[in-house]
Amino acid sequence: MGQDILFEFIGTAILILFGAGVCANVSLKKTLGNNSGWVVIAFGWGLAVFVAAYISSPYSGGHLNPALTIGLAVAGKFKGSILGYIIAQMLGAIVGACLIYLMYKPHFDEEENPNAKLGVFCTAPAIKSLISNLASEIIGTFILVFGVLMAAGAEIAGPLPVALLIVAIGMSLGGTTGYAINPARDLGPRIAHAILPIKGKRDSNWGYAWLPVIAPICGSVLAALLYILIF
Amino acid sequence: MGQDILFEFIGTAILILFGAGVCANVSLKKTLGNNSGWVVIAFGWGLAVFVAAYISSPYSGGHLNPALTIGLAVAGKFKGSILGYIIAQMLGAIVGACLIYLMYKPHFDEEENPNAKLGVFCTAPAIKSLISNLASEIIGTFILVFGVLMAAGAEIAGPLPVALLIVAIGMSLGGTTGYAINPARDLGPRIAHAILPIKGKRDSNWGYAWLPVIAPICGSVLAALLYILIF
Amino acid sequence: MGQDILFEFIGTAILILFGAGVCANVSLKKTLGNNSGWVVIAFGWGLAVFVAAYISSPYSGGHLNPALTIGLAVAGKFKGSILGYIIAQMLGAIVGACLIYLMYKPHFDEEENPNAKLGVFCTAPAIKSLISNLASEIIGTFILVFGVLMAAGAEIAGPLPVALLIVAIGMSLGGTTGYAINPARDLGPRIAHAILPIKGKRDSNWGYAWLPVIAPICGSVLAALLYILIF
Amino acid sequence: MGQDILFEFIGTAILILFGAGVCANVSLKKTLGNNSGWVVIAFGWGLAVFVAAYISSPYSGGHLNPALTIGLAVAGKFKGSILGYIIAQMLGAIVGACLIYLMYKPHFDEEENPNAKLGVFCTAPAIKSLISNLASEIIGTFILVFGVLMAAGAEIAGPLPVALLIVAIGMSLGGTTGYAINPARDLGPRIAHAILPIKGKRDSNWGYAWLPVIAPICGSVLAALLYILIF
Repeated sequence: MGQDILFEFIGTAILILFGAGVCANVSLKKTLGNNSGWVVIAFGWGLAVFVAAYISSPYSGGHLNPALTIGLAVAGKFKGSILGYIIAQMLGAIVGACLIYLMYKPHFDEEENPNAKLGVFCTAPAIKSLISNLASEIIGTFILVFGVLMAAGAEIAGPLPVALLIVAIGMSLGGTTGYAINPARDLGPRIAHAILPIKGKRDSNWGYAWLPVIAPICGSVLAALLYILIF
Repeated sequence: MGQDILFEFIGTAILILFGAGVCANVSLKKTLGNNSGWVVIAFGWGLAVFVAAYISSPYSGGHLNPALTIGLAVAGKFKGSILGYIIAQMLGAIVGACLIYLMYKPHFDEEENPNAKLGVFCTAPAIKSLISNLASEIIGTFILVFGVLMAAGAEIAGPLPVALLIVAIGMSLGGTTGYAINPARDLGPRIAHAILPIKGKRDSNWGYAWLPVIAPICGSVLAALLYILIF
Repeated sequence: MGQDILFEFIGTAILILFGAGVCANVSLKKTLGNNSGWVVIAFGWGLAVFVAAYISSPYSGGHLNPALTIGLAVAGKFKGSILGYIIAQMLGAIVGACLIYLMYKPHFDEEENPNAKLGVFCTAPAIKSLISNLASEIIGTFILVFGVLMAAGAEIAGPLPVALLIVAIGMSLGGTTGYAINPARDLGPRIAHAILPIKGKRDSNWGYAWLPVIAPICGSVLAALLYILIF
Repeated sequence: MGQDILFEFIGTAILILFGAGVCANVSLKKTLGNNSGWVVIAFGWGLAVFVAAYISSPYSGGHLNPALTIGLAVAGKFKGSILGYIIAQMLGAIVGACLIYLMYKPHFDEEENPNAKLGVFCTAPAIKSLISNLASEIIGTFILVFGVLMAAGAEIAGPLPVALLIVAIGMSLGGTTGYAINPARDLGPRIAHAILPIKGKRDSNWGYAWLPVIAPICGSVLAALLYILIF
């Protein structure tokens, strides 16, 4: 296994450790950050990307997202193993989610609302609506991947601009479906939720699980195609 | 059409996608960021400028604002097509607002307050007062354009200082009229509001629409004149 | 008049425009940012310093604070006119406060609480206590001036580190006296409050006015002396 | 005494001045930032590290944390006096906590809840659970030390990335035990709490005091070992 695959695994585990962590801290009962609001969610996920990306990017490029890996490959910016990256990202996401369960277990035990428990792991639309939910995840991922591609052009690549882009997406575009914009971020922890012996858990909402996988990939490929079209 | 005009269009569409998006997320019913407050509005708009500016500025300078284009032209810092830039900015703003309607449509449908729906698109004064409203938009845009002109002098030009300037304007000077400080930001989405088939919408408040167009242009020209006077 | 004096005037006017502005937005009735909390106050003042400092520092060093001017002079880091700087800072602070009154006048008119109106202009202790109030302003200014002196040593001088230092002081040390830490920031707007025809205003609390002038100067001189002692 | 030891003392005193300060401002009665929430806690501690680190790091490396000193020594990145550093960090933490008591004394006097008073000084678990509490402090410190080691590799070392890492840890991993992740940060102020004549104080919760000392050291050593294993 190459170092790049290893760091995609480590990076995505860190991403979900922080990302699922901020959801747990804001949502679960009796946490110190309980009910601290969307500002904490948005900065928490942005900083999750910041930390995970600066640790992994020197060794793997820090994709941490199968949609981004595919988009970069379509745009001709990634020559590594797409399959290897995606497997590493998925496994990392599962591991990160399990660590959060370990840390926050007493709070999962005290929480009565099974939707709050599931919400630590994966996204769900605030209002179900096929077209708008698809549009949210496609547009959100489109701007993420287009932003990453353009950051290289603007010579401001690096973890901080991408982290701020994630904060922006969370604040502005995340209010509808919870901005998965990353198949590993959503499916990996959803699998963890299904496997883990969480007290009083509900089903893992598999009926919705395809959307935050398919829509981000579509958004990413569209961004790559626009990028090719312009340059 | 030159690449500069294209990127003014793309950049302004991204600016309004994020800017109208954060308003939708904070104001509309059942969003995940509902009622998350002015801190999210102020950082959301600041990061909207950050993303839109870093994507567009290498190709167009990233004005994204007719008042800024005019101010830079007055100060002798812009030699391109003022009309082309303004048309691109207006069209981009309309497109960005339409994308937010598509994403947040179920939340527009559930929202009963027509002022909240209009507020996603354009600004309105908290208290109507011709002199204070004019002063707010003139002073806000003055400091934006003066800040942009001085950033170049301080050799800290770039998207982050301008984004922080926008956060500052929002937090400190935005409490009265909602800091349009950009004719395209206000008039473009207002046109989108008038055109789009939004359920239960009110009129687009055309009686106020002139102020966030005229006052920002005045503020920008004043800033350019002061800049010329000093240097 | 030298350009340095002019830019101390401009910079301090901008500092108070933003600083008094964020207080007005958070405190006064019917503003859009009403009641948005200490996080907005702390970031608002930090960004006020960021904008004012990056505009003025290339031309005047961007002191914007008589205590800092005196401290830098004691430390041997400032050779200009102390008196000229202080007069410019005081006049700038008065002008900035007057502009905020102009912008927020309808909100001053609707606000019934005279303490809220005074609080837009100047600080007051949450609990009166001579020793603790003095300690708050001395320690706050000490760390500001020591931080500015050490930033130069750490080669991270520039507006962003100082702005983050101000946010830190606000969040951590500002909860007692409202962190004047700057005689011009407190006395200048207090004079504006006394002069302006604000509807239903109270007296300008002159009995406390000496403390946020004297204590910051003490804290600054102590920081300069410690700096000299160490290096 | 070397300058490095002196600056570990100064830096840790500043760290706790700001860190205990933000806890006092958010928790104690009648403060201006009362009840301003987890977003202020998380940014407050992150900026505490930013200020303390940029002041001390040119002279001592800016560890400010016995666990980090030990971890860096294990990883072969620190050749100084471990004992000297730890003593300086502990003394600095005690001094910083005493200064906050001096500043916030009237608010300590008015506060009735003895747990709120203790919470200004040291951490306590939201829910007692030996395994999850240990996991929280081990994982939190692991990622802190691994992040510091990797930041050097990514050539983004410096105070800002570490400060953002601290904000991330606070937002995501701090909701269970209050993220001591630093034996000096917890034990030093706890000693100050025991010594200071705080009105109506409770005992200093010595039964828990070992955990935020031992667990951070374990997490740090694990991070150092993983770092050695990979590189």
